[in-house]
Amino acid sequence: MAKEFLGKRLVTADEARATFAAAWSPRYEPETVPTADALGRVLAERVVSPEDLPPFRRSLMDGFACRATDISVVPVTLRVVADVPMGEVTDAVLGPGEAARVPTGGMLPENADVVVPVEQTRSVEITGAEGVEIHTALTAGRHLIERGEDVTVGEEVLPARHRLRPADVGALMGLGLVQVSVFRLPVVGILSTGDEVVPSEETPPLGKVRDLNSYSLAAYVQSLGGVASRFGIVKDDPELLHAAAAAALAECDVLILNAGTSVGPKDVVAGVIQRLGAPGVLVHGVDIRPGKPTIFAVCGGKPVFGLPGQPVSVLNTFDQFVAPVLRQMLLIADEPRTLTARLTEDLRSADGREDHVRVRLQQRDDGWWA
Amino acid sequence: MAKEFLGKRLVTADEARATFAAAWSPRYEPETVPTADALGRVLAERVVSPEDLPPFRRSLMDGFACRATDISVVPVTLRVVADVPMGEVTDAVLGPGEAARVPTGGMLPENADVVVPVEQTRSVEITGAEGVEIHTALTAGRHLIERGEDVTVGEEVLPARHRLRPADVGALMGLGLVQVSVFRLPVVGILSTGDEVVPSEETPPLGKVRDLNSYSLAAYVQSLGGVASRFGIVKDDPELLHAAAAAALAECDVLILNAGTSVGPKDVVAGVIQRLGAPGVLVHGVDIRPGKPTIFAVCGGKPVFGLPGQPVSVLNTFDQFVAPVLRQMLLIADEPRTLTARLTEDLRSADGREDHVRVRLQQRDDGWWA
Repeated sequence: MAKEFLGKRLVTADEARATFAAAWSPRYEPETVPTADALGRVLAERVVSPEDLPPFRRSLMDGFACRATDISVVPVTLRVVADVPMGEVTDAVLGPGEAARVPTGGMLPENADVVVPVEQTRSVEITGAEGVEIHTALTAGRHLIERGEDVTVGEEVLPARHRLRPADVGALMGLGLVQVSVFRLPVVGILSTGDEVVPSEETPPLGKVRDLNSYSLAAYVQSLGGVASRFGIVKDDPELLHAAAAAALAECDVLILNAGTSVGPKDVVAGVIQRLGAPGVLVHGVDIRPGKPTIFAVCGGKPVFGLPGQPVSVLNTFDQFVAPVLRQMLLIADEPRTLTARLTEDLRSADGREDHVRVRLQQRDDGWWA
Repeated sequence: MAKEFLGKRLVTADEARATFAAAWSPRYEPETVPTADALGRVLAERVVSPEDLPPFRRSLMDGFACRATDISVVPVTLRVVADVPMGEVTDAVLGPGEAARVPTGGMLPENADVVVPVEQTRSVEITGAEGVEIHTALTAGRHLIERGEDVTVGEEVLPARHRLRPADVGALMGLGLVQVSVFRLPVVGILSTGDEVVPSEETPPLGKVRDLNSYSLAAYVQSLGGVASRFGIVKDDPELLHAAAAAALAECDVLILNAGTSVGPKDVVAGVIQRLGAPGVLVHGVDIRPGKPTIFAVCGGKPVFGLPGQPVSVLNTFDQFVAPVLRQMLLIADEPRTLTARLTEDLRSADGREDHVRVRLQQRDDGWWA
């Protein structure tokens, strides 16, 4: 006998996900943000370099810039004809037998094609000038970085859809790209319903309970990298709830209505969602425990979920159904963490139903036990 | 021959870490924050429940509350003597053969010790009253949750040093604990030095470069969960730099001075750090590549680091030396991610020196290659 919920066949978790996936796919909208605030954001387009980096041939060491042909036989003494200050342009041009003192990061004079680290040199006096004795024969290109060696104008620095890491933020700032085009973060609206729910700041009169689900849901959204927006608590009144839900949906990319999805006389959530926009409710009732009364809907192109009110159910259904949708919107690879463990006691599940049971894990000599 | 840096023996990375660890250990200071903003924060003290949760015996189903002794033989018809509204107190007291309609989450009348889900009942007419026919024999305690079953007054809800997850945020809000005592997040000050460094917004004149390290460092701090505070760019002038560093250190828990730790004529960072407070510079020069000129210091109880200016060096030294200190301050278990791969080409390392080489990983049929 097919299992039913509200007179309809109860769908499996996978059927519910498939029905939803057939009706909705994410849109990725770009927005421009300061690069300094863009850690973890996903690039909306590839970034190409606006310039050569480094913009000039730089020394990688404190030492002496010279011509490799002059130091092929060592020791050799060169005349120090220039002293390149850090951060300054040099117009020195090295002739044969000449060297210039350069700091790490400093610009190399024309004709210099190698840098000898200061530790491999010794200052000497020569007639009428400062001299430096070079102790190590180095080949052209040592201890320097060529203009454009890191990146050249027009070269791709980062591909589209790349998630920015700390070094990327620095690299973009180094190129003067102080703004960057990234995908907008999804905003998830959370609306609590129920005559029995009071704000968390209040001491609930007997019979009522404090709102807690809107906070755990908001924190869960935040932990995935989305933006949560709580829209307060609304009474179980269809008109009030519809007005609040429509207003919330207008400001969000995803809307979660929490509580009131079961079959009590005041459960108005499914009807309210149906009125929010086409195609409306896709699934009402999923064969998992806890979480049976879950609603999947798409209203005006936006995912809308009705999640049950019990605190464990709401987190389980969020984890099973909403989190994968948010990961898709956030371009996070879906990696369920699974681990196989033996049970310390038997758990019985109704035929065909998925049961989600919270366990405590323990590593014993013979493996994991739950 | 012992390797030297600035005339002193170059210490190994492990020696540098050990010297630092002997001179400094983190202090954990509590602060009170709104619970709704406390995801990922670490509790400064254990949390005990200020009340019983649930505060009354609640139904877990929409159905009929009754006495288990009355439904040990089914079918049986009971008189419906009350209708408990959601979120309201009921003063009903069930006598033998009596039931009350209850919603999910609703308060149970006195003497009710079981809830029969509405699907397992049928409405019937009985003389002078509403009746309900019960189809399933259930034992006492089914489909309800006792007062204090989740948590009782004074019971520990979460231990000290627990990192708050989404469900914890909700649980605390459900207990009315809208504020929570957590450890303060470390603030890491970042000060860039160098006559050649210009702000990232500017087009650098030839010879100068844009600041990028302060942004990658700030993003790295942020990625670990710390708070980064950039203090701008200061010229290579000992007095200016000392004033800026002292002002920054006063506002931070950790200070990073970036660039200027090598041996060029303008490298004033070590001297500046030495003047910031006792014991001052502990290590100057570590036998790793890249990153040799790294400085470890403790000034007035706060870690101070001098990191080299080259963008790859600065991230490597942050990763090797600063990140472990921040993880310790943030109470994050130190888990270096390691993977063994074969090299596609030989890399030679000087005797005793740790070389840190960035590689591209590739999974081939015969394993990982770098």
